[in-house]
Amino acid sequence: MAVAALITENFKFMSLFFKSKDVVIFNGLIALGTVAGQTAYTVFAFHCPCSSGRNYLYGLAAIGAPALVFFLVGIMMNRRTWDLLSECRLRKCQKLSGAAAFVLLQIIVGRALVAPLTWVIISFLQGHAYTCALSEFIDPGTLESFPSGQGSEVMAKFPCVESVPTSLQSFWAGIERRLKYESQLIGWLLVAGMSLTVFFMLCVKRCTSPLGDQQEEYWSLYRSHENTLLQRTASVHAQLLAAQNVKSFFGFVALEKEEKEELMEHERAN
Amino acid sequence: MAVAALITENFKFMSLFFKSKDVVIFNGLIALGTVAGQTAYTVFAFHCPCSSGRNYLYGLAAIGAPALVFFLVGIMMNRRTWDLLSECRLRKCQKLSGAAAFVLLQIIVGRALVAPLTWVIISFLQGHAYTCALSEFIDPGTLESFPSGQGSEVMAKFPCVESVPTSLQSFWAGIERRLKYESQLIGWLLVAGMSLTVFFMLCVKRCTSPLGDQQEEYWSLYRSHENTLLQRTASVHAQLLAAQNVKSFFGFVALEKEEKEELMEHERAN
Amino acid sequence: MAVAALITENFKFMSLFFKSKDVVIFNGLIALGTVAGQTAYTVFAFHCPCSSGRNYLYGLAAIGAPALVFFLVGIMMNRRTWDLLSECRLRKCQKLSGAAAFVLLQIIVGRALVAPLTWVIISFLQGHAYTCALSEFIDPGTLESFPSGQGSEVMAKFPCVESVPTSLQSFWAGIERRLKYESQLIGWLLVAGMSLTVFFMLCVKRCTSPLGDQQEEYWSLYRSHENTLLQRTASVHAQLLAAQNVKSFFGFVALEKEEKEELMEHERAN
Repeated sequence: MAVAALITENFKFMSLFFKSKDVVIFNGLIALGTVAGQTAYTVFAFHCPCSSGRNYLYGLAAIGAPALVFFLVGIMMNRRTWDLLSECRLRKCQKLSGAAAFVLLQIIVGRALVAPLTWVIISFLQGHAYTCALSEFIDPGTLESFPSGQGSEVMAKFPCVESVPTSLQSFWAGIERRLKYESQLIGWLLVAGMSLTVFFMLCVKRCTSPLGDQQEEYWSLYRSHENTLLQRTASVHAQLLAAQNVKSFFGFVALEKEEKEELMEHERAN
Repeated sequence: MAVAALITENFKFMSLFFKSKDVVIFNGLIALGTVAGQTAYTVFAFHCPCSSGRNYLYGLAAIGAPALVFFLVGIMMNRRTWDLLSECRLRKCQKLSGAAAFVLLQIIVGRALVAPLTWVIISFLQGHAYTCALSEFIDPGTLESFPSGQGSEVMAKFPCVESVPTSLQSFWAGIERRLKYESQLIGWLLVAGMSLTVFFMLCVKRCTSPLGDQQEEYWSLYRSHENTLLQRTASVHAQLLAAQNVKSFFGFVALEKEEKEELMEHERAN
Repeated sequence: MAVAALITENFKFMSLFFKSKDVVIFNGLIALGTVAGQTAYTVFAFHCPCSSGRNYLYGLAAIGAPALVFFLVGIMMNRRTWDLLSECRLRKCQKLSGAAAFVLLQIIVGRALVAPLTWVIISFLQGHAYTCALSEFIDPGTLESFPSGQGSEVMAKFPCVESVPTSLQSFWAGIERRLKYESQLIGWLLVAGMSLTVFFMLCVKRCTSPLGDQQEEYWSLYRSHENTLLQRTASVHAQLLAAQNVKSFFGFVALEKEEKEELMEHERAN
């Protein structure tokens, strides 16, 4: 009886759970995310080639290519890029002083650098790529009681420890510790450097602004309101124009009731 | 009794569950997706033939055929393709300068290339197809202490490592690492190249446009509004014409109430 | 029966819990947090390099870099920082006495210190970093029956106990106990010191204030109300201005009905 009651309640709970609509969307997102994550994990997995010369190239490609993609996407998504470009194209940059252009470029590049730098930092903190790429550059002489006469070809094979001669396999733990230490240290230094840079950039930005703190806030409020109203008004204006053109072609135009009222009102105001 | 109660509650739960409509659609999608995914996994699974000459052909087919399908679907789904075609058919391309035709073709091909390129890149990053296709072209002389006198027939058998003579099976790990390295390197280079190309195309498109940034946005708003209104008005216009023709045949026409009101209104406006 | 009733109630509670919509967002946050936490755990894991000289540097970086980030973020998030900066920039700090500036700086730094100090205290109470960093500075002479003639290179290897000569491995338990004791003792002293400092700071702040307890409360109430009203009014003012500017560009402005009424009312009051 106890088990039956338990399961009964369980089903009641689940029925309640699935009634709300948002949860369905949420579950779909979770499911999609899981599948995408799994696929990404197997597709983008890091497989060290364990061969002198190739290790370095592979590590560079596996860190650099996604970082490049993140950087370019960051530049493309920023509207200021295209603002600056159209400004320079249409008016030959006449209204743009050298200092202003420099500041704008700095802002665009700075924003676009956040994502790739995060990717590089995470890669360094994980240490897989660095360990693979630099194992061949370790000088065997710095390892205690390491047999001499081993070239970089053998050192490059260490990340795939099974393919190293058995007599040398015990050295891998020490080598891995040293490489991982270097990788994580670089990662932490990048973290510290990045946060210091962001801090100083913010200070400089605030110091060179002609506005006070409250004025800066009012200005950002105004810009957001202006942007919203401009886009909304432009959309209504374009719809008005399109309705006129379609009307002159078909003799009438099929508008929804609310659209008609809205357009009427603005036409009158016009 | 306990079991009966359990099943009763189960049915109650399921009836509650299926009452809400959105959940049913969602569940259907999940079920369909699971079945489709499972089927796709077994149908499209990559089985290397492990035979000289066939490996290459099989890898090419498994990557090329889906890519071709994606490319053709991309071209077919693009309305500009048919716009360009009908333009050239009806007016002998008189209104189309050479440069404009070139740009249009470039846009059509460029959009259609995104899906197949993504497919090719994922295949290269996974590396199954490349490993299978190119294992026979590896020169045994480049492998350390590999017995000489082995032809490409033996090299082609390596992807199915069980069918290789036992004395050679230990070489597979190194060969697989090398092939996977090449495959993933090509994949990452393609990723970098693709993102650079997209970036430069966008730059060129923006630079050759006679409109500024805000104007470009207004123009895209206008086009979207015009498209919506044109399609809606064309549909109403066609219904009006069809209603007149059916009326002239039967003496009356059976319209739904909303349709009647809508058509009345537009007829009057006409 | 008792257990069944308990579980039944549990489910009833959970069904109630999941009815509210915010819970979905909450669940999403929980899920995201779990995934992010898991990833962070593997990425930020502490791997002692076990090498003399490197241990100390690595422990310092792994504790110091996140603490620095927390400190800078704490300073950047504080509005008083930018208030003070713009005050000093625009009016050359004329309205700011030395004592007031000192107090303001103290408040800013004090608030920004909470997060990094918490991080440092947690690190000390866990003891991984301290154990790794300071094992090489232990004097072998203080360990009972420890073979003499071992340098700091050997002592540094103790945190990775597998790489220490087998005859010395039994000493690790004692060394680890001693280092963990020191680390946790420092952690607890920091906790005590921090809470005492906060307490005395609060006392000093109350003692130097010219207001009584109830007056202080009224003053904080007033400030919160003023802040709310100022921000709301600034937003409406900015919207009014933006509407005027957009109107002068397009000839009309597309406002929502409530916005229009609100702006009308304020314009009239203006």
